[in-house]
Amino acid sequence: MRFSKTFIKTLRNAPKDETAKNGILLTRAGYIYKELAGIYDYLPLGLRVIENIKSIIRDELGKIGCEEVSLSLLQNPELWEKTGRWDDKEVDIWFKTKLSAGGELGLAPTHEEPITSLLKSYVKSYKDLPLYVYQIQNKFRNELRAKSGILRGREFLMKDLYSFTATEEELNDFYSKVEIAYKNIFDRLGIGSDTFEAFASGGIFSKYSHEFQTVTEVGEDTVWFNKDNSLAFNDEVFNDEVLSEFNCKKEDFTAKKACEVGNIFKLKFKYSEPLDLKFMNQENQNQTVYMGCYGIGVSRLMGVIVEKFADEKGLIWPENVAPFKYHLVAIGENGEKEAEKIYEKNENLFFYDDRKSVRFGEKMSDAELMGIPYVVLVSDRLLAEGKIEITKRETNEKTLLTTDEFIAKL
Amino acid sequence: MRFSKTFIKTLRNAPKDETAKNGILLTRAGYIYKELAGIYDYLPLGLRVIENIKSIIRDELGKIGCEEVSLSLLQNPELWEKTGRWDDKEVDIWFKTKLSAGGELGLAPTHEEPITSLLKSYVKSYKDLPLYVYQIQNKFRNELRAKSGILRGREFLMKDLYSFTATEEELNDFYSKVEIAYKNIFDRLGIGSDTFEAFASGGIFSKYSHEFQTVTEVGEDTVWFNKDNSLAFNDEVFNDEVLSEFNCKKEDFTAKKACEVGNIFKLKFKYSEPLDLKFMNQENQNQTVYMGCYGIGVSRLMGVIVEKFADEKGLIWPENVAPFKYHLVAIGENGEKEAEKIYEKNENLFFYDDRKSVRFGEKMSDAELMGIPYVVLVSDRLLAEGKIEITKRETNEKTLLTTDEFIAKL
Repeated sequence: MRFSKTFIKTLRNAPKDETAKNGILLTRAGYIYKELAGIYDYLPLGLRVIENIKSIIRDELGKIGCEEVSLSLLQNPELWEKTGRWDDKEVDIWFKTKLSAGGELGLAPTHEEPITSLLKSYVKSYKDLPLYVYQIQNKFRNELRAKSGILRGREFLMKDLYSFTATEEELNDFYSKVEIAYKNIFDRLGIGSDTFEAFASGGIFSKYSHEFQTVTEVGEDTVWFNKDNSLAFNDEVFNDEVLSEFNCKKEDFTAKKACEVGNIFKLKFKYSEPLDLKFMNQENQNQTVYMGCYGIGVSRLMGVIVEKFADEKGLIWPENVAPFKYHLVAIGENGEKEAEKIYEKNENLFFYDDRKSVRFGEKMSDAELMGIPYVVLVSDRLLAEGKIEITKRETNEKTLLTTDEFIAKL
Repeated sequence: MRFSKTFIKTLRNAPKDETAKNGILLTRAGYIYKELAGIYDYLPLGLRVIENIKSIIRDELGKIGCEEVSLSLLQNPELWEKTGRWDDKEVDIWFKTKLSAGGELGLAPTHEEPITSLLKSYVKSYKDLPLYVYQIQNKFRNELRAKSGILRGREFLMKDLYSFTATEEELNDFYSKVEIAYKNIFDRLGIGSDTFEAFASGGIFSKYSHEFQTVTEVGEDTVWFNKDNSLAFNDEVFNDEVLSEFNCKKEDFTAKKACEVGNIFKLKFKYSEPLDLKFMNQENQNQTVYMGCYGIGVSRLMGVIVEKFADEKGLIWPENVAPFKYHLVAIGENGEKEAEKIYEKNENLFFYDDRKSVRFGEKMSDAELMGIPYVVLVSDRLLAEGKIEITKRETNEKTLLTTDEFIAKL
């Protein structure tokens, strides 16, 4: 992508009401645009980051046999009335709207009800199970306050996966597989070493659920960790009763701020029972389907990655999520010619700052703000010595290579 | 994809209130699921069709220098008040909702206002222009009636492209480029020979806009064509005044039913003026940006393709949009073994009916209903003669090949 052709620019200032680091930096670097508090647009580079996150998730879920769908955003109240979740007293973050033909609709805050109801058309017998169905879709939550940038949106992107099994054993097996898939996802996103699985409360049917919590100063959650981080509890279940179950004592734990990037939940019959999702078992008896649900906050992850890695100069993207691998900066006449040659080798790898009449200093500080992993400087001065300079954004480590050496590495 | 592993099944019946052919067949074949009138879910095969359509659009728009974004669905009334389009008397298909923090929000029926406003942060000088920005995003329209399947949704997927230029000449140039890109898109989607560019009314600033109309019995529009289809007018502008401009007479035209799959519109200052999108020209004067907008109905296209090609047995997908190229049917013990071998060669090409205990007749009628371009039958009977049978779904033309011959063609 050529800087001279894209509409985005780096901006000196983020909107005045933007107080979160992720919101400020992503806006200034041209990745997102704020429509209203908690409501953002994704600009070309931001969309590429989101797509990279989605690809990694799709890849890992594909490996454990999940299939992708896309469910509607507009919601039929009938389904949600059956589970008691249409009532604003039960779920207080609904956006509701009126259908001109009569009646109300909701904007999906999550999708358990429609996916459960949909499967009634397809699940008849034990032979139809197990099933693992997910989507990467927008969600809407009518938050009273939204001031954490893309960490907590009124409109945001989520991956929601649902499992449907005939037995509790199969539910447990798949739950374990998702735990591994999630670890792989967070590893590939570059936040694996700071992301921990914490016990959380389980609701009606299960004692515990699990949250995947990334330790970060801006996290809204408090998570309690033991010494080697091998055991973690969210605040809600951090009490003597729970701890005694694990043979632990409160004093062995310390609190850290963390941001929930995923959660997994054994729903069992919570939705399949009120929505009547049943199957015929091997003994020809009707049985209720066991369900699990498994979420990942896709747009939130983008924000968490910013919060974890950014420094005082700007964004720093892990290579797997970066919009491009290289930020190619051309300076001077020969620099431009050489940079064109490099860019043409593989346009998909480069964000190419081919802007004329923008000074060296501005190009380099833009590159630092935008956070692409490697800055490739191709300048008259360096070329006079036969070299180009590659700077790793994260460490500021510099390498001098000939163009041919660099191209050979692509 | 293995039939035995996906949750979808072919269904005997579509919902009772589904009357459109596209809605009935897509539901019966397991591509979509109806939540409410005009509100559909996309199931694994349906999502693949949608993704194929999106890829073709992205590819053609990339060639003419467009860049992709994703704008929020929730809309800030302020922007729409500036253009007069917040008022339900002006735009009568709004879904509106209340923000719990106070105030109203809308669900985007289109995105001219936010994209124009967004660009105010990025367009300052003539050097920043021209710009071509698009997204493929959901739209919401609060239709009083919705009974055409996915041809007219209350929630639907659209590609909306906006051009921003300094001069009218550049607007006209880009408009012509989009006309060519659209022709390429409709050609690649398999509906090129039935899709025509028709004159339509132009609004305040332009005499005419253009609609891309696919001739089909179920079309809601009436389009008037001359003898060789080289000239077409939509009903709205088919009058003596317009015709005299083109030196034509009404009697030389015949009416056909058609479905609008795209439209292009020279907006000029319609939105940039009220939203104050200006740039500094070469003479250091403030000037209003020329805009154009260019839509394609993505989910509607899927419906139009169904309506155009389906026959009494079911769907027929053109190869470029089909979820898979081959529908692989295994019959008998040796058939299964041989089919596995073929499937493993390239899983991405095959929808593989590996279901046990489903009879030959049912497998073949499911294949016909699902409409994948080639049915590859691998049965004990045929293998005894050393052959497998490839049937072209559209023509029912059959070819016998050895497995090796077929694999060599993949």
